[in-house]
Amino acid sequence: MTDFKSLLEGYKVIFFDAYGVIKNYKGLIPGIEKTFDWLNEQQKSYYIITNDASRSPDLLAASYNKNGLLHITPDKIISSGMLAKEFLDLKVKKGLVAYLGTEDSAHYIEHPGLDTLPLQQMNEDNINDITALVLLDDEGFDWMDGLNKAVNLLRRRTIPAIIANPDGAYPMSKRDVGIAIGGLAYMIEKITGRKFIRFGKPDSQIFMFAWEYILPFHPGITKRDILMVGDTLHTDILGGNKFGLDTALVLTGNLLPEDHETRIMATGISPTFICETAVL
Amino acid sequence: MTDFKSLLEGYKVIFFDAYGVIKNYKGLIPGIEKTFDWLNEQQKSYYIITNDASRSPDLLAASYNKNGLLHITPDKIISSGMLAKEFLDLKVKKGLVAYLGTEDSAHYIEHPGLDTLPLQQMNEDNINDITALVLLDDEGFDWMDGLNKAVNLLRRRTIPAIIANPDGAYPMSKRDVGIAIGGLAYMIEKITGRKFIRFGKPDSQIFMFAWEYILPFHPGITKRDILMVGDTLHTDILGGNKFGLDTALVLTGNLLPEDHETRIMATGISPTFICETAVL
Amino acid sequence: MTDFKSLLEGYKVIFFDAYGVIKNYKGLIPGIEKTFDWLNEQQKSYYIITNDASRSPDLLAASYNKNGLLHITPDKIISSGMLAKEFLDLKVKKGLVAYLGTEDSAHYIEHPGLDTLPLQQMNEDNINDITALVLLDDEGFDWMDGLNKAVNLLRRRTIPAIIANPDGAYPMSKRDVGIAIGGLAYMIEKITGRKFIRFGKPDSQIFMFAWEYILPFHPGITKRDILMVGDTLHTDILGGNKFGLDTALVLTGNLLPEDHETRIMATGISPTFICETAVL
Amino acid sequence: MTDFKSLLEGYKVIFFDAYGVIKNYKGLIPGIEKTFDWLNEQQKSYYIITNDASRSPDLLAASYNKNGLLHITPDKIISSGMLAKEFLDLKVKKGLVAYLGTEDSAHYIEHPGLDTLPLQQMNEDNINDITALVLLDDEGFDWMDGLNKAVNLLRRRTIPAIIANPDGAYPMSKRDVGIAIGGLAYMIEKITGRKFIRFGKPDSQIFMFAWEYILPFHPGITKRDILMVGDTLHTDILGGNKFGLDTALVLTGNLLPEDHETRIMATGISPTFICETAVL
Repeated sequence: MTDFKSLLEGYKVIFFDAYGVIKNYKGLIPGIEKTFDWLNEQQKSYYIITNDASRSPDLLAASYNKNGLLHITPDKIISSGMLAKEFLDLKVKKGLVAYLGTEDSAHYIEHPGLDTLPLQQMNEDNINDITALVLLDDEGFDWMDGLNKAVNLLRRRTIPAIIANPDGAYPMSKRDVGIAIGGLAYMIEKITGRKFIRFGKPDSQIFMFAWEYILPFHPGITKRDILMVGDTLHTDILGGNKFGLDTALVLTGNLLPEDHETRIMATGISPTFICETAVL
Repeated sequence: MTDFKSLLEGYKVIFFDAYGVIKNYKGLIPGIEKTFDWLNEQQKSYYIITNDASRSPDLLAASYNKNGLLHITPDKIISSGMLAKEFLDLKVKKGLVAYLGTEDSAHYIEHPGLDTLPLQQMNEDNINDITALVLLDDEGFDWMDGLNKAVNLLRRRTIPAIIANPDGAYPMSKRDVGIAIGGLAYMIEKITGRKFIRFGKPDSQIFMFAWEYILPFHPGITKRDILMVGDTLHTDILGGNKFGLDTALVLTGNLLPEDHETRIMATGISPTFICETAVL
Repeated sequence: MTDFKSLLEGYKVIFFDAYGVIKNYKGLIPGIEKTFDWLNEQQKSYYIITNDASRSPDLLAASYNKNGLLHITPDKIISSGMLAKEFLDLKVKKGLVAYLGTEDSAHYIEHPGLDTLPLQQMNEDNINDITALVLLDDEGFDWMDGLNKAVNLLRRRTIPAIIANPDGAYPMSKRDVGIAIGGLAYMIEKITGRKFIRFGKPDSQIFMFAWEYILPFHPGITKRDILMVGDTLHTDILGGNKFGLDTALVLTGNLLPEDHETRIMATGISPTFICETAVL
Repeated sequence: MTDFKSLLEGYKVIFFDAYGVIKNYKGLIPGIEKTFDWLNEQQKSYYIITNDASRSPDLLAASYNKNGLLHITPDKIISSGMLAKEFLDLKVKKGLVAYLGTEDSAHYIEHPGLDTLPLQQMNEDNINDITALVLLDDEGFDWMDGLNKAVNLLRRRTIPAIIANPDGAYPMSKRDVGIAIGGLAYMIEKITGRKFIRFGKPDSQIFMFAWEYILPFHPGITKRDILMVGDTLHTDILGGNKFGLDTALVLTGNLLPEDHETRIMATGISPTFICETAVL
């Protein structure tokens, strides 16, 4: 067990996972604002690296602010949705992009040159105009209707299929989880034999995106100057490790304190450090 | 290509798959009644071996009869749901069995000593009384609600989980498919890390059930006297082959005539015979 | 925890797994002969249901006898290899059957009408005569040569591929395991996209084979009269449960006493009973 | 079908896959040197992006040179082995690194501060000193010995496990393939439940590595200026697409001209362009 504050001393930039580190199903983790106060005082930079593509960085930041955490501004947030946006910009460029998710999540696919279509509105008239399918969020559509439409769209059209949040489930309460859009995507892949392009931790591309995003503000920085803090072994820690960052596992989220050693041994995914909490 | 009629000459008992052989999304396959007329004339026996657990044999037979095919009586139908019923009888015996499916599908879990619960009615008061979960059909419940309840039930209770139809999808029209309960089960398995007990083709147990069911009526019969007729390589043909039966693939269902050779080579699943149709 | 002796009182026939129940990497489990003495006294029947296809029942029994356990005679042994034998008899009938395994394991594929070929002897002259591939044991061949030949045989010929022991690994010592033929088969499947026909626990077909094998000796027996005893949740217990048998988990093999509750909860595979050991 | 030469006009930098594009099992693809002559004349840059970690860039380049292709110098080669090297440098730093592969492949794990150990030399004395396992090549060790040691090492030690070439198989002749180290890794993962850290196409990290490697030489370059040329949909094309590059599929390797449309439809992986060959 490492003391989180003394650990932070050694890094210039901190990447935080959101869920299980800064907030949980009940709201903000009590006292977390002190961590950001101290980081600001020390002139250390911080960013939120999140697989949450349900809302734009503006709306995600607004939700922290509303709960009293004013340190998190939109420019501090790097969401897997932003990688979907970049992909469409580079590789799709035009046509009709169908999506599953709420209207808020559609932020990530709104582009000059692209029209967007909630997948529930797909029909025989517009199916042949669709140039990409993007899965953004598990809300905003009837599952039976939306999932069947996704399966049949991919059977009939050879188009890129993107999943902007690879998580299979997310905590809903102390005991229960909710199936996330990444879990629904598994099923579509299994039935269609097609593979989604996955953006989000643990895939390296979100870390690379973050790295290129912060580089102009931190000239001369190296990977050794960055610490990734997360609560989940197979996303935050695995992804951070693979990208070459030091990683700190906190025990305020997915992983119960009494289970963490067993899980590390079973998975072979070892954080560089283990801390009780990210609260100072 | 083998002529179906001359093929039938060599067998005493014929096992038919239902979908893609006798009926399709438009109803009965035209002319199929002649096949059963001839089988009756020849005093050959026939049975329907089906992964359809959405309705009782009585209701399944009634639906054939209503469409004009009177040869198919309830005693001719062996459904994967009957194996779920036998499992509950031998291994669960009492308590509350939760299910996903329509009220009609619940036929297979109605037992002396067992109470049944549509999973959508699960709550904190009854969750600890549940002694088994059975997935029967993709209809009869809201998917978001039902699937999340299934995931959380299996996370909280160590109980048998049974899937009475392992098919991932079924044909809805010439082009489109619908996600079946087996496809939904796959997602629940992936998220929970738990494995369902699967009943239905290609698993041997349904063939064994059929074998024991017909034995009293056909003393001295051997596996060489039975032909399995189906349209799907990885259920009807794989399962029939593994059980030691001769198998005939017909091209009126899942597999397009132009694709069948490619699919046989890609999967390595070879029917003993290939016939254009089961219509005489 | 149930006392094994009082448990046995309630059954007429006992199915035993071999490894982890009767023997382990050091030889026979001390005292196990008393269990069989008592079963004989009580005129209860017992059978060994094993995924070991490395040797014939004669040789398997001889190895028990040599170690002092005389109760186990060849007629008491039901090996997954016997199902491979039955499959070849019903479905392959003639030609050249290639195999991976020792010469002893080839017992299961020696049939009137069939020639056998150690896969290492496959070449351009005989590859087109091969009518089936059977994987029997992880010994008896060079892995690089044999596995590459298996992959290329399945790419070039559309023939049945059978694995007569689905286990992925087996215990070699208190700490270490050895990769078993089922583990090697997994890799061949992944690379070729082909699926092996798997015989052996947990698949129902071996239980059905055992059931039909004992039926003539036990007229009027029902599944309720049989107890399956094993040390492995996902083979012995899962398979026994699915077939409708009562099952007893013993803690002398794969599963450490301190881990068994965690593993039962994680997998959802529950034995009917848990006993410390099968030694009386 | 696009003409390869006119396609090249639109890009400043070309990334080439090696196998199936520049060379095949018989040696260099005839005429390929003209492509590099022309690229040099036009002052376009080119790099080889390869999953081959069996030898150092020096030795890989020497092999092209020996066959008469002098354009490919070590500085033009980016191998997945280089990512393994960077990972060890950032995340392992010291101790004993065990590996599977030839002595030549060990180039990628030779580091100041690290000792290397061919896995076949692992024993009870040194197993506790091992700080990482790296799989580099399928040659250089006895498979039965090496794979069993890899399985038991990962069962007993919680250390990073890296696979420096994720390919499952590679072409050996017009008809046959060889199992590659990535195929062997699958099996180890399946048996141990552990996941290797995978470096190499289609994973984004090798493209990012290449991108950062070339940036100093091409100031102001964007992803739109780079073309990825490959013969394999699920590595070269999928990886290039995901990273945001334009991609060109050539039909001189893995994918037969008559199959490419079917495979694109089945996988949903679409190259931006399709060219017969990379030979001008």
